[in-house]
Amino acid sequence: MVERTIAVIGGTGDQGFGIVLRLARAGEKVIIGSRLQQKAEDAAKRACAILGEDCPVSGMENPKAAAAADIIIMSVPFAAHVDMIKSIVGNITPEDLFIDVVVPLSTAVGGGATTSLGVWEGSAAQQAVKLLPPKTKVASAFHNVVADALQDLNRKVDCDVIVCSDSQDTRKVVMELVNEVPGIRAVDGGRLENSRIVEQFTALLIGINIRYKVKDAGIRITGITP
Amino acid sequence: MVERTIAVIGGTGDQGFGIVLRLARAGEKVIIGSRLQQKAEDAAKRACAILGEDCPVSGMENPKAAAAADIIIMSVPFAAHVDMIKSIVGNITPEDLFIDVVVPLSTAVGGGATTSLGVWEGSAAQQAVKLLPPKTKVASAFHNVVADALQDLNRKVDCDVIVCSDSQDTRKVVMELVNEVPGIRAVDGGRLENSRIVEQFTALLIGINIRYKVKDAGIRITGITP
Repeated sequence: MVERTIAVIGGTGDQGFGIVLRLARAGEKVIIGSRLQQKAEDAAKRACAILGEDCPVSGMENPKAAAAADIIIMSVPFAAHVDMIKSIVGNITPEDLFIDVVVPLSTAVGGGATTSLGVWEGSAAQQAVKLLPPKTKVASAFHNVVADALQDLNRKVDCDVIVCSDSQDTRKVVMELVNEVPGIRAVDGGRLENSRIVEQFTALLIGINIRYKVKDAGIRITGITP
Repeated sequence: MVERTIAVIGGTGDQGFGIVLRLARAGEKVIIGSRLQQKAEDAAKRACAILGEDCPVSGMENPKAAAAADIIIMSVPFAAHVDMIKSIVGNITPEDLFIDVVVPLSTAVGGGATTSLGVWEGSAAQQAVKLLPPKTKVASAFHNVVADALQDLNRKVDCDVIVCSDSQDTRKVVMELVNEVPGIRAVDGGRLENSRIVEQFTALLIGINIRYKVKDAGIRITGITP
């Protein structure tokens, strides 16, 4: 495995914390980023209590976490997306890989989680591109995996993760990363502009959760191998 | 089974013809609708050559097909969607059930099939509502099932069909209809406005087909039963 550090911005939240646990369990070195150093450290402690000895998880303020990482995973509510990127953008280099997990749910403006907002750029991921340094490698992933499934390490996740990026090389790196989580299969989602479809699908899945009274509706693409 | 007749407007096209074959094989009485009587009759003959004796498929001009049917399935390219509805709207009664299969692919304006157009009303299905008589029962379905899989009757379709409608009763009727096709599982997609997500997902699936060099990428929702 490549020597690398992954920062999960918003790693104290449900989705982010689940990603932290899964990637750390897969052997990645992970930093939990938070607005507050103390909150980040507390979450890291919580992660290490679950992961056991040789815990590769630490906690830092978001900008420090971004500065220390090669891969930055952005997992915050859409309402915080722009401000959060602005707060760390000075700590991101063009060599870094930025993975956006954000879904523009209507909750950002007081609406429900079963509908989504239109984003001027097309998707949250494309909004990120506009704010990041030119030539930053940007991808989007993990939109359709529910936090519950990620956080329960005894469980195999039953969901494909559709990975979008304008760079085929970047997609490959992210797909390999995503495939480290047991049960998840990475699917090549093509260009970053396709992220709008994948992001919006999350709102549909949340509605399906409600209608079927379940908590972890996910998605599998059929007709492709692997 | 309820005594009923189903018209597939655009039933001479690949997707429509696949739906005709599957529903006829399931025992439904099906009329293929086309702009030209002769073309409709030819397609019906072609269907009956595949289906064998006691063939429940006939062919009619679109308005006549709509008039004779209780369920009208609209399966035309998006470029023809509005005109086609206008051409049959006088033959639709509020008792009828209208199922929209149309996906607003960019092909409608000379673009590719891996991207989609924004529709003012939100989705093709909602555009239909605006043109149909008030109180027509409207649903959308069959967007993510590929024509190839539908047309090969020896094959079990490996795809869920997400059904959207503002009426829960209508969703139930359409889900039962959709479940008549072996391998297809109907999933309750909620309100018709959610159709925009399901429609757009088709563009992503077409892109996945291209990237994976396959012809029948589909979708399954995980974490729900049945």
